[in-house]
Amino acid sequence: MKHRSAIAATGHKFRTKNISKRVQKIVISPIKEMSILADLFQEKTGADIISFGQGIPYFDTPSLIKKGIKKALEQLDTAKYTLEPGITELRELITKDLGKRKRIENIEAKKEIMINTGCQETVACALASTIDEGNEVLLFSPSFASHIEQTIQFGGVPKFVPLIEESGWRINFQKLKSQTSKKTKVILFSNPSNPTGSVFTEKEVRQLADFAKKYDLIIITDETYDFLLYDDVKHFSPASLPDVRDRVILCSSFSKRYALTGYRVGFAFADQGIIDHMLKVHDALTICAPAISQKAAISALKSDQSSVEEFVRKLSFNRELMCQKLDELKDFFEYQKPMGAYYILVKYKFPKINSFDLALKILYEARVITIPGGAFGPTGNGHLRFSFACSPQEIEEGFKRLFKWATTFPIP
Amino acid sequence: MKHRSAIAATGHKFRTKNISKRVQKIVISPIKEMSILADLFQEKTGADIISFGQGIPYFDTPSLIKKGIKKALEQLDTAKYTLEPGITELRELITKDLGKRKRIENIEAKKEIMINTGCQETVACALASTIDEGNEVLLFSPSFASHIEQTIQFGGVPKFVPLIEESGWRINFQKLKSQTSKKTKVILFSNPSNPTGSVFTEKEVRQLADFAKKYDLIIITDETYDFLLYDDVKHFSPASLPDVRDRVILCSSFSKRYALTGYRVGFAFADQGIIDHMLKVHDALTICAPAISQKAAISALKSDQSSVEEFVRKLSFNRELMCQKLDELKDFFEYQKPMGAYYILVKYKFPKINSFDLALKILYEARVITIPGGAFGPTGNGHLRFSFACSPQEIEEGFKRLFKWATTFPIP
Repeated sequence: MKHRSAIAATGHKFRTKNISKRVQKIVISPIKEMSILADLFQEKTGADIISFGQGIPYFDTPSLIKKGIKKALEQLDTAKYTLEPGITELRELITKDLGKRKRIENIEAKKEIMINTGCQETVACALASTIDEGNEVLLFSPSFASHIEQTIQFGGVPKFVPLIEESGWRINFQKLKSQTSKKTKVILFSNPSNPTGSVFTEKEVRQLADFAKKYDLIIITDETYDFLLYDDVKHFSPASLPDVRDRVILCSSFSKRYALTGYRVGFAFADQGIIDHMLKVHDALTICAPAISQKAAISALKSDQSSVEEFVRKLSFNRELMCQKLDELKDFFEYQKPMGAYYILVKYKFPKINSFDLALKILYEARVITIPGGAFGPTGNGHLRFSFACSPQEIEEGFKRLFKWATTFPIP
Repeated sequence: MKHRSAIAATGHKFRTKNISKRVQKIVISPIKEMSILADLFQEKTGADIISFGQGIPYFDTPSLIKKGIKKALEQLDTAKYTLEPGITELRELITKDLGKRKRIENIEAKKEIMINTGCQETVACALASTIDEGNEVLLFSPSFASHIEQTIQFGGVPKFVPLIEESGWRINFQKLKSQTSKKTKVILFSNPSNPTGSVFTEKEVRQLADFAKKYDLIIITDETYDFLLYDDVKHFSPASLPDVRDRVILCSSFSKRYALTGYRVGFAFADQGIIDHMLKVHDALTICAPAISQKAAISALKSDQSSVEEFVRKLSFNRELMCQKLDELKDFFEYQKPMGAYYILVKYKFPKINSFDLALKILYEARVITIPGGAFGPTGNGHLRFSFACSPQEIEEGFKRLFKWATTFPIP
C-alpha cells in the first residue's frame, strides 16, 4: 500500500473493521491526495503553496459560457433531474462535434451518446459494464492514476504494459502481447496521455485496434485532451475506425477544453449495446449529470470556439516556460517533452528516495505540489508529474522554490 | 430479468458480448426507465404525458439560492475542481445543521463529513466501502429501487425483509432476524421511506440500531426526506445514538429540501475511518461534487429556511389531493397514507397483470407515468408508486385520465 498512497506514506492508519477488502486495496488517486495533504498543511502552518499537482486550468470559464449558465438559471428545468442519458440537445451537439473533429460518421445521438458526471464517471461506467471480478485490464505504465484505482474498484486486475520512455513514451507491442491472457477483457488508456503528455500516432492506434480485434478486447479511450496538441502533432481516435467501432468506448469531457473542471460533465460514445449497460451503472452512481453543467456544455459547443484556441496558446506558452525551467535544473531532472495535454512526467536524479516520499518532502520543504510518479504504475517510479496548467507566474515562483530547495538536497 | 425492468418488458434485447456478468444482472431503476420510455413515446406520437413517476418537486429553486449561484459564477474557483471531500465551508454548515435538526453532537467537519455528487453517489460510496462480492445486504421490501441495483452492482446479494403493509409498512423484526446470516454486512434503507412514504418510529430505529450492534452490521440510512413529514410525525436518525455512531453511514441530499434535484449534491456523515475509504470510491467515481452545486448548497443552508416550510405546505396539500383522488378510485386502488416523503405505494385491484406490464399500459393508454411496484422488491409486486411532487393541476389532470382509463379496464 505504502507505495501507492501519499496519505499512507505520511503514516496515516486506515480502519479495517467493517470495511470491504476491495476498497482496502484502492487509494485516493495521489493526484488528489497531494491536494488534501497540502490543504491540511496549509491549515496547520499557514504556508502558501504553489500547485503543479492536479491538472486545473488557471483561467476562468469563458464569459460566453457563463452567459449561457445564467440564462439556464432562469429556466425551471435547470432545477430538475434531466433525462438520465442526458439532455437530447447536448447529445446531438456532441454527435456533430465528433463528426467534425474526429470524422466519426452516422452516430445516433439518442442511442450511442450518454452524458456523464465528468469523464471519471464515464470511465467508471465503461469498466463496470465490461469487467467482472478477476478480469484483467491492460494499462500502459505510466497510466492515469485513477484508471488503476477504477480497475481495482470494479474487481479488475491491472496488467501493466511499460511504455518506452526514451523514445517519448511509445508503445511496446511485444510487451502488450505478453501481458495479454484469456482473462484480458479491456485495454484502457488516455490519449493524449495523462501523465506523460505523449500522443499515440495513427499507426500506433491502428495497431492497438487490430490487437483489440484479434484478442476480442474492448478499447476504453479517454480523449479528454484531444484539443490540446503541440507542434502540429495529430490526434487519432480508434472510434473513427468502422472495423472496431462496436468495441470502442470513447470517453471525454468538457472540463479542460472549456475550463469547466468544477462542473463535472463528460460523455461516452459507444455502440448502443454497450451504452444500454453503461446507463444502468450511471443510474446507480449519479442518476444524471448536473443539469446546469449540461447546459454549460451546450453553451460551450454552440459558442464561438476562439476561447479554445486561446487556451491552447496560453498552455503552449506554459509548456515552453516549464521546459525551460526544467532545463535550468537539469542536474536534478530530465524529461520527454510533452506533445499533448499539460503534464510532464519528469525523471528525477535524487538518489534513494521513492517518489511518494520525495513529493511529500517537496510539499513540506519547498511548498510546491508535485505528483509522485509511483501513482501511475511501476514505470512511474523515480518520476514526478508536473502540471503546467497553472499560471506562468506560478510556474516562475514554483521553480524559484524548487531551485532553492534542490540545491540544498544532497546529490552524490 | 423481465420482472425487474420496464425496458426489458417492452421486448428490448440487451447485448451480451463483451458485457460484464455483473452489469447484466442490474437494470436502470424503473423510476428512470419509465421516464426514458415516456420520452421515446412522446417523440414518436407527440403525446403529452403527465408524470407521477420520478420524484421531482414541481417548483423552482428558491430565488435566494439562485442569487447565491449567480454570485458563485463570478468567482474563479467555481470553474475549478473543489477539494475532493468538498468545500470546507459546506462541510461546516452541514455539521451545524445536523446538530440542530438531529441533535448529533461533536462532528468533526473535515474528518466525518464528505460531499457527494448527489445522495445516489453517497450510497454507492457507502456500499462499495462496506461490501465485497457475495456479501449480503438487508433491504426492506419495498425498498428504494436504486438501493437494490447498487447492492448488486457492487457484488452484494439483496436479502429482502418484507414490511407489514396493513399496519403502514412497519418493520417485522422476526423476518429481519431470519434474513440475517454470517454473510450479512449491511442494512440499507431510506427513512422517510421511498417508495412507501412510511416513517420509522424512534422505537423501531433504536431496535434496528441494537440489531446492527448485535450482528456487527453497518447501517446505511438515506435521510433525504427527513424534512418532509406530515401530521406531526417525528423523524429519528440512528446516527444520533452514540452507541452505534461508528457503524452508521448517514446519507442525505439537498435535492428535495431545496428543489435542487438537477444539481447533484449530497453528503455523508460517518466515522472518520469509514469516510477515509468512501473518499477513495468518490474519487474513482466523480472526483468531486460540482463546485457550483456545492455553492448552491452553501447558499441554501445559509438562507432563510422559510422556502422549506413553503415546500412542505405545498406538498402536504398535494398529499391530501392525491389521497382524495385515490379514494375516488377505490374500486381500483387502495393505499397506506404516507407520513413522510412524497410517494404513495398503491395496491391495485386489476387482476392478472404484473406491475411492469400495468405501468406500461397506463403510460401508453392513459398517458400517465407511474412506477411499477416490482421495482422495489418482491413485496412491491401488485403495486404502483405514485409521486405527488408534481403540481396540483397535474394531479387533477392525471387522475382524470386514470379515471377514464380505469373504467374501461375489465374488472371481474
